[in-house]
Amino acid sequence: MHILPPALEELIEAFAGLPGVGPRSAERFAYYVLRNDTHIAHRLSSALEDLHSNIDYCKKTFALVERGKEFSDLYTDPTRDKTLIAVVAEPFDLVALEKTNEFHGTYHVLGGLISPIDGVGPEQLHIAELIARVDEDKVQEIILATNAGVEGESTALYIQQQLEDREVRVTRLARGLPVGVDLEYADQITLSRALEGRQTIER
Amino acid sequence: MHILPPALEELIEAFAGLPGVGPRSAERFAYYVLRNDTHIAHRLSSALEDLHSNIDYCKKTFALVERGKEFSDLYTDPTRDKTLIAVVAEPFDLVALEKTNEFHGTYHVLGGLISPIDGVGPEQLHIAELIARVDEDKVQEIILATNAGVEGESTALYIQQQLEDREVRVTRLARGLPVGVDLEYADQITLSRALEGRQTIER
Repeated sequence: MHILPPALEELIEAFAGLPGVGPRSAERFAYYVLRNDTHIAHRLSSALEDLHSNIDYCKKTFALVERGKEFSDLYTDPTRDKTLIAVVAEPFDLVALEKTNEFHGTYHVLGGLISPIDGVGPEQLHIAELIARVDEDKVQEIILATNAGVEGESTALYIQQQLEDREVRVTRLARGLPVGVDLEYADQITLSRALEGRQTIER
Repeated sequence: MHILPPALEELIEAFAGLPGVGPRSAERFAYYVLRNDTHIAHRLSSALEDLHSNIDYCKKTFALVERGKEFSDLYTDPTRDKTLIAVVAEPFDLVALEKTNEFHGTYHVLGGLISPIDGVGPEQLHIAELIARVDEDKVQEIILATNAGVEGESTALYIQQQLEDREVRVTRLARGLPVGVDLEYADQITLSRALEGRQTIER
């Protein structure tokens, strides 16, 4: 016996496949779509349908671009400093940096992090292309903006080693206390890093 | 300048239209779909596309059924007691009751609750059809299983009044302490209801 019609069950299951969506949320999404005008279902449906065929990767930075576009605006824009590269793991990571409005260099998306457990070696990432850019664009500084976890650290270390014989400054994002977090709530590792990276106050 | 390609922005916006989905979750969903095989995008897309055209309402209970089906299995099944009706506001409410495996009557979905603020009067709900069922199916008991809020209460009251001249028992779900909740954490209204509805312990 069906409690719900199969078409609705199918939609609930499809929603439940999204990350962090439990069965209750999936039911809520499906019921919201059902209660509303077909317009909402159509919009989401065609956005999903069109996604893969309308997206490409920038041939230089591997950031996401619309299909048919060779290079990302974040690379071609003449105001961006091509001698400064922020290296990130995934395409969305650059959105966070971009929102600070403080970075005017270009990006390089690795497409992941080195992870032997998941079978991801350096050759699967866009590291060779990064080295090539260093030479082509006469890059002065590379900011390794990978996560603070084990994979982020080892990927950063690997890239650093690859760049050893080139005259390029390699930096990393500062580790320390997040703004607005009390000392007593900071974890030990963050606090150790904040101590190591302590800065002289100018007087 | 586009940080993200328009097709991706569009999908993020469409996801952010779902109830309780903020911009960060919407980004996460969109990126998950993008990273994965097109199969995931297709499945969700066609489930959305097919939804409205594959769903209908049971002509008797107003529960959701597949298109072309006149009555819900929950009504036609011969093991269900048609003289007992649980009245719920929305189609999903019966799923919760059904999952208890304790109810073997039939359902009646009102399609909402009386709400003067939202312009929903009794005539917009399937109340007349409920009264008709009482006569047709010789209904013995109606369980008003609406929410405990103001709208649920006033809808229940209205239905009760409409049934006054008929010989049918009208009951409501018990209000009281939810199982597993400590006395000290129960809110005052729930506790008042639990007091009012206190039951004699058989000895």
